[in-house]
Amino acid sequence: MATMTSSSFAKLPEPPYFSVIFSSQRTAGENGYGNMAKRMAELASGQPGYLGVESARGADGFGITVSYWASLQAIAAWRSDAEHRIAQETGNALWYEHYEVRIACVERAYAKQG
Amino acid sequence: MATMTSSSFAKLPEPPYFSVIFSSQRTAGENGYGNMAKRMAELASGQPGYLGVESARGADGFGITVSYWASLQAIAAWRSDAEHRIAQETGNALWYEHYEVRIACVERAYAKQG
Repeated sequence: MATMTSSSFAKLPEPPYFSVIFSSQRTAGENGYGNMAKRMAELASGQPGYLGVESARGADGFGITVSYWASLQAIAAWRSDAEHRIAQETGNALWYEHYEVRIACVERAYAKQG
Repeated sequence: MATMTSSSFAKLPEPPYFSVIFSSQRTAGENGYGNMAKRMAELASGQPGYLGVESARGADGFGITVSYWASLQAIAAWRSDAEHRIAQETGNALWYEHYEVRIACVERAYAKQG
């Protein structure tokens, strides 16, 4: 794996662990989205049970962020974090045209070898 | 939800169902990737147990594709599909610098309201 790109991938323990699959369509306009996303990534990474995150968004504004967690309790705690709740409310009102959230238990994982 | 963007989102049944979270870093160069991706999407959608797919890739070449399936058996059958196996081998050799695959059971789902 090239050093250049290794930081895009989350380094995770062996399964089982949990994931939050967040797919979203951005609205037009920046509206402070970039700063919020950066702050939320920073805040999430300090939460108990946080394991990692991966994220991609295309030029059409459709994106997928998958965050990984040690337990469902950790996910619930992050969801109810006060600063995160403000971001969620602003996301509903301003940043996202639509989103879907799917909470899943990762049972098996493998990677490209070499 | 705007008509314009609704096709990016998979329309899924109520959980539980299964997901394959495929995160990848593309190599430089097209090398037939676009045609393969289109063909694999078409082929996957005709497989037994296929429920839907969502996909995003940024300008840096890092992407996430999440496909959704009715069962682990359906995922295993798709993984061993002959044409898909050729694509997997070419992906290893040519298209992907690195990738991670995580197989997960979706237990809960919700969406933006309104």
